[in-house]
This record gives sequence, C-alpha cells and structure tokens, in this order.
Amino acid sequence: MSSAHPRLSLNQATIKYADLPTAISVTAGAGIGSIGLWREPVAEVGLARATELVADSGLRVSSLCRGGFFTAFEGESRRASLDDNRAAIEEAATLAAAGAPGSAAVLVLVAGGLPAGSLDLAGARERVRDAIGELEPAARASGVTLAIEPLHPMYVADRAVISTLGQAVDIAEEFPAESVGVVVDTFHIWWDPAVLEQIARAGAGGRIASYQVCDWLTPLPADVLLGRGMMGDGHIDFEPLTRAVAAAGYRGDIEVEIFNQAIWNADPGEIAALTARRFAEHVSSLWA
Amino acid sequence: MSSAHPRLSLNQATIKYADLPTAISVTAGAGIGSIGLWREPVAEVGLARATELVADSGLRVSSLCRGGFFTAFEGESRRASLDDNRAAIEEAATLAAAGAPGSAAVLVLVAGGLPAGSLDLAGARERVRDAIGELEPAARASGVTLAIEPLHPMYVADRAVISTLGQAVDIAEEFPAESVGVVVDTFHIWWDPAVLEQIARAGAGGRIASYQVCDWLTPLPADVLLGRGMMGDGHIDFEPLTRAVAAAGYRGDIEVEIFNQAIWNADPGEIAALTARRFAEHVSSLWA
Repeated sequence: MSSAHPRLSLNQATIKYADLPTAISVTAGAGIGSIGLWREPVAEVGLARATELVADSGLRVSSLCRGGFFTAFEGESRRASLDDNRAAIEEAATLAAAGAPGSAAVLVLVAGGLPAGSLDLAGARERVRDAIGELEPAARASGVTLAIEPLHPMYVADRAVISTLGQAVDIAEEFPAESVGVVVDTFHIWWDPAVLEQIARAGAGGRIASYQVCDWLTPLPADVLLGRGMMGDGHIDFEPLTRAVAAAGYRGDIEVEIFNQAIWNADPGEIAALTARRFAEHVSSLWA
Repeated sequence: MSSAHPRLSLNQATIKYADLPTAISVTAGAGIGSIGLWREPVAEVGLARATELVADSGLRVSSLCRGGFFTAFEGESRRASLDDNRAAIEEAATLAAAGAPGSAAVLVLVAGGLPAGSLDLAGARERVRDAIGELEPAARASGVTLAIEPLHPMYVADRAVISTLGQAVDIAEEFPAESVGVVVDTFHIWWDPAVLEQIARAGAGGRIASYQVCDWLTPLPADVLLGRGMMGDGHIDFEPLTRAVAAAGYRGDIEVEIFNQAIWNADPGEIAALTARRFAEHVSSLWA
C-alpha cells in the first residue's frame, strides 16, 4: 500500500456516490490516514455501524459535515434545526472517539442563507451568532468544536450568510476556543484581500478547527456549487494560504473536499489515488 | 412625458441590444434625465456622431463604461491596454462635455482577471494599482475621474481581481480624489460585512464616483455574469446601502445597470419605463 502524506484527509464529499464502507475502503486503499465524514452516508448505515466501520478501519476522523442552517426566524423550524444540530454534535463526538488517535471532534457549520422573502442580511447574521451561542454549551459538554465555515460570497443569499473568514472569527471569538472555531477552505476564501491576516488572527486565537483544500475552476459550472476542482486544475495558489495556515499553528489534518460532477462520476478508488498525488504536488510540499 | 426620479440614470447595458440613438430615445421617452454610456455602442456610430446625439438629447451623461483590464504582465498587450484606456479617458471627457449640466466625466474601470496560467493574485492586484498610477495624469489633465469598480469575488479569477470596496478605496486613496474614485454597485458589494463602513469611508474621502443599483437573483444563471436583476426581483435590501451612500455625501446620478438575458430580450422602451418604476419603489424613496 502506497502511503499518502500523513496529514491528508479525504473528505467524503469528494467521492460522494460511495457509501461509507466504500469510502473508508478507498481512503485506506490510497494510503490516506484520515477521513472527513458526512452525516447522510453515516445515517445510511446507522451511527452504531458507522462507528464500528470507523473503528475497524484504523483511520482518523478529521471532521463531520455538517451542521448549521440556522438563519430561520424564531419558531418551529428554528427549534428543529437547533435540535438537529445537537444530534450532530453527539455524532461528531461519537465518530471522533471511534477514530484512530489524532481524530478531531469537529462539526462543520454552514450558516444558511436568507429566509424565504427576507432581505435582512444583518439580522440573519445575528441569528447565526445566537444559534451558535445556544449550541455552544452542548458542544463543550461533548468535547466537540463547532467549526464555522465562511462560504464564498456567491452563496450569501441562498446558502451561507457568513462570507468571510474575518466574520467567522468575529463570531467564534465570542466563545471559548475549545468549543467554537472556524474552517479555512481555500475555495471560499482565496479571493479575500485580508485572507492572510485573518488566517494569522484565527491561528493566534487557536481558532482554526479545519483546513480544507480544493481549487477554483473557470468557467464556473451552471450549478455554482460544483465549481470546486482538484488542486492544480484551477486558479488557486496553495502556497501562501498553506504556509499561512502552518505558520498560524494549525497541526491538524488537511481535508480535500471537492464537489464536482466529473469527479463524482469517476471511480472513487482512482479519485482517492489522484487526491493523494495532487495533494503531494500542490499542498503537502509546502507543509512545514 | 412622465418624469422619473431626477437622479435616475439608465445604464446602456440594461438595454444592451439598443443602438445609441434608440438608447437615448427610450431613456428620454421614459422621463429619465441621465444615461450611462458604453464604449462599444458609442464606437458603432463614431464618437463625433455620439457626441451630437448626446448634446441634442438634453440628457446628462453619468459615466462611460469601461476601461481597465490591465492585469497583464509588462509587454505589448499591457501597453496596448493602457493606450486603449487613454483613448477611453478622452471619450469620457468628450461625452460628458456634450451632456447636459450635471454630467460626470467618469470612466468605470474593471480590473481584469488573472493572466492565463498565472496564480499570482497579489501580483495582479499590484499591476492594477500600477496601471492606475500610469493613467492618473492623463485622467487629471482631461478632468476625468477613474472609477475603480470592485467586482463580486466570484469574478476574481477571470474578470476582476479587485473584489471589495475597501480594496478599491485603498488604491484610490493613493491618488487625488478628483482623478481616482470608486464605483459602489449593489450587486457586487451587498454581501460584504464591512460594506457600510467602507461606503462611509469612501464618501468621507470624496471617492464615490458612481452609485449603481441592481438586484441579486437566485439561482444564479449558468452564465454568472447575467445574474443581475431588476430591483425588487432578488435578495438585496437597497435601504441600508442607499442611505449609506446618501449619508456619505454622494449627490450624483444613480445608475441602473442590469445584465440579464430576459431583460435584454424585452422591448427597450418597456425596460426603461420598468426601470423608472422599480427605481421609484425600491431606491429613490430612500434618497434624502
């Protein structure tokens, strides 16, 4: 078995059509030591079975995707979303405990977009902060870090009202660093003129809970959610970002998370192997 | 003739398939007092004829679109781009002089994307600043304001490496306020958590050279350049942005600039009338 870089983690979304047993098997088969899990394929086999599969695999768990989507106004739908996030916190704790040493109990949070018919962006952002405040005690009690992921500003209306790393760190800093951090995802933040300062700031506060890499393709596909590409196929220079994350003190796994129809259509084993090669070429050589 | 809000200007791109005589005629026909011109339809009739048409119309000219596209590395293509920008500066001066009193000699600048094969975003941004430095004396001599337009970060790779209002103001402030300012375009900047502070900052320095409004539609169309919509059809709250621009001291025309295939396919006279109505409903009522 070839061995990939020791800090590489394959996020399950990169091989979206593989079920959990397959995802685990191709990850290990490519010599990758860590996996980023998603709730849906975990639910498909059930949490108990997923936990066994993870434990038997010897892989680390680098994160669980995803919680969040809490911009709704107060009411039933908001309460349901918060309850679902509490369940996700428990899942993140359980799966990380089943993973190999070095696993991270990190729940990635995507904020959610504007509620239907609402134009109040500032209000939606406040409700995100409030929701994290409601969830933080549960995360702390379970030893889970809530990782706020700023999404690219092109998703602000319909997916995530948290648009910059600085904004995510602003919210995280209202809470203990153990329970609330941020995700640094190259695709979402590479354009930001303030990105290097914000990575340094996040790292200084111990707030980097996850580092995710993938490339930015042009032209963007018709579904802009699928514009993420394999490292080296797009426009992102991984060197300054990766060096900044390393210099900021992050020592966790680095996930490759790619939403891309062509990659999803390919053989998951080949994609895992390609991920390891491209990670070696474009990212891990920069890692101190 | 009905009369639109006195500060409304119809940007020619909103009725892209109309030639210059038609664009002028439907603008005046909708009771709109000002027009934002584009270089291509001006060139189609020739600058001399365009100047006559503008002078005869009694309309103000609110801006000329567009210069820029100067991220190329030093060499022939960069020199050609700078020469073309010098020509655009002269056109902006000539057309504004032909317009009714209150016309603005403003040349809108779109920075340009990464040169083919380059991943050096920081370097491209420096070359934009350098290009503006080369052009500023010509703009000053002609009484033209170069208006740096930050474009939405989804265009950073292939269209404009200037992605935030703050970044545009940073560059503008290296030069006199008379010759270098910024464009505030709701579509490009509404997502920015720092937008209200940056509008205030731009206004305090006398840097707001143009205010453009249009809405953000979801889902984004396959060609993300065409996701701009008529005010009221999308997710942007024009109130805080418009109040901030007014409070920042901007007293110029407000352009409606929409790239949208359905709007382009419609009758330009109807679009001009619709623009005036939507502007009254969503924007001008907020104008102090």
